[in-house]
Amino acid sequence: MPEQPIAVVAVDAGGTSTRAVVVRLPGQCLGYAVAGSGNPIAVGPQAAAASVAESVIGALSTAEVPGTRIRMVVLAMAGAGSTDVAPEISSRLAGIGLDAPLVFESDLLATYFSGTHRPEGYAVIAGTGAGAIRVEDGRQVAVADGLGWLLGDEGSGFWIGRRVVRAALADLDGRGPSTALTPLMLDRLGVPAPSEPGDREPIRAAVRALYAGPPVRLADYAGLAFEADGDGAAELILDDAAAALARSLAAVRSPGVSGPVVLGGGILGRSPQVADRLAAACRAEEVRAVADGAVGACVLAVRHAGTLVDAAVFQQLTASLTAVR
Amino acid sequence: MPEQPIAVVAVDAGGTSTRAVVVRLPGQCLGYAVAGSGNPIAVGPQAAAASVAESVIGALSTAEVPGTRIRMVVLAMAGAGSTDVAPEISSRLAGIGLDAPLVFESDLLATYFSGTHRPEGYAVIAGTGAGAIRVEDGRQVAVADGLGWLLGDEGSGFWIGRRVVRAALADLDGRGPSTALTPLMLDRLGVPAPSEPGDREPIRAAVRALYAGPPVRLADYAGLAFEADGDGAAELILDDAAAALARSLAAVRSPGVSGPVVLGGGILGRSPQVADRLAAACRAEEVRAVADGAVGACVLAVRHAGTLVDAAVFQQLTASLTAVR
Repeated sequence: MPEQPIAVVAVDAGGTSTRAVVVRLPGQCLGYAVAGSGNPIAVGPQAAAASVAESVIGALSTAEVPGTRIRMVVLAMAGAGSTDVAPEISSRLAGIGLDAPLVFESDLLATYFSGTHRPEGYAVIAGTGAGAIRVEDGRQVAVADGLGWLLGDEGSGFWIGRRVVRAALADLDGRGPSTALTPLMLDRLGVPAPSEPGDREPIRAAVRALYAGPPVRLADYAGLAFEADGDGAAELILDDAAAALARSLAAVRSPGVSGPVVLGGGILGRSPQVADRLAAACRAEEVRAVADGAVGACVLAVRHAGTLVDAAVFQQLTASLTAVR
Repeated sequence: MPEQPIAVVAVDAGGTSTRAVVVRLPGQCLGYAVAGSGNPIAVGPQAAAASVAESVIGALSTAEVPGTRIRMVVLAMAGAGSTDVAPEISSRLAGIGLDAPLVFESDLLATYFSGTHRPEGYAVIAGTGAGAIRVEDGRQVAVADGLGWLLGDEGSGFWIGRRVVRAALADLDGRGPSTALTPLMLDRLGVPAPSEPGDREPIRAAVRALYAGPPVRLADYAGLAFEADGDGAAELILDDAAAALARSLAAVRSPGVSGPVVLGGGILGRSPQVADRLAAACRAEEVRAVADGAVGACVLAVRHAGTLVDAAVFQQLTASLTAVR
């Protein structure tokens, strides 16, 4: 009787989107799919579980592996599944006949292993939130920040977006310098510019619109700092963001661990402006930016299944994921 | 038939507490009472209306003015009653047989007139929120900030408290300098200090506790900056708060209006640390701090009833309010 093929499912559950990958052991990615936010802290356990289930179903259907046994589902998730999201996910996956055990892992560690297979180094993440970790023996042994939009997340998308809208409103209000961020913000909000000096209607309209959404949605305005190329206020915000992220990295640095430094999350992984500033500040031999934590989720998944992830397996995971994406 | 005595009720509805005063025209304060938060934006229209009604009932009962006709109720309130709080208040006052018309006024203007009867000048308010106004012809003609905790309120109690807890958490996290704010915050939260270097349990416990309440409650930690006398991080926060308030004042300054500058709200009215810094920065002939907006609410109330508030009436209102408080 031929041996039944064995696979694992890796899920990278992020604040903006969720990625699922079906990986045949030891390291061949077979199927891939994307769904909405899988962060239970941001959208609640129900919506996060729905995104996870949708991405897993999509990945299994693209993988076309009938008869393959799914040994486990490894989920890289903020808070590592510490909320009541686990039973929600289990029940949704049981609904499609998938009753493999769930294993939760740190989303920060998945970002780290998206950039390297090496068991020692650092990751700095700036997406909607922000934080830094140190990795030793393949495990996350130290963390800085990641304290959420109200209390920390310095240098994150929320942090940058909040500074952007406050700078624009201070400009409109006469409290701050004139900045190119102001017309960009008003345009994004669909609010007309002031009709004459002292016209406060644009301020009132912008304030109404911005308070109508949840606070974390200020992260949507971070991109304006990248658009306002060369603007003094925007440059200051990006400089301060990079400096804040450098402080988080410095807080987890250990003399015995040199690197690499992996940069991830929507701000660092997709926008060179902050990543370049941070790379210049962090004086590491090797700095690499990753777009998301999907490769790292696969690394963690095959490792949980007993496979040692060396340079060759890492290379195979990366190349085969690129091929199915 | 003797003329029936006529009085007005003045209400100073603040974010922390609400004050009501019964004033016999032209300017004799007869009764006074305090209730809870009367800010409909902070606590909702129902709770704000309940506080207003409770303070009015209390003031009427201490005034002991049976047979006196209440001509109107003037309410100094954030947003000047722009929410649906008005019908709530009307119905509650009708329930005690008080059907006088309600008139809404700016809470910032009430702060201004708590410090002076002069028709031209400025007020800077820093309580839970913060902003500055210019007054001409007895009316509020310009305003800066007052944009709420998420988008503005620079130098406010929330703004200071947010900086305090973030500085303490950055200290615990290794991202920021050691500060006396850290033990003060942990003590206030009832969270034990770290048991050894790298112990993150205090961070986790503090973060859980601080996210459990509404964001604006970070204003409760502003006082720690005053307690941490001589601490570098605390001094920096208070310097920055005073500088932010000075920018708000500068934004409403007009060459034709010299002063006075009235300082109010819980941060400026009751704590000399920020008020002294701001007074030094604002270079006005006359700067005076007021504890709340009660006198100013009386000024606005008797003015609405047709009384000109000159120096003599202002003096009578101030002295008689002190006597009944």
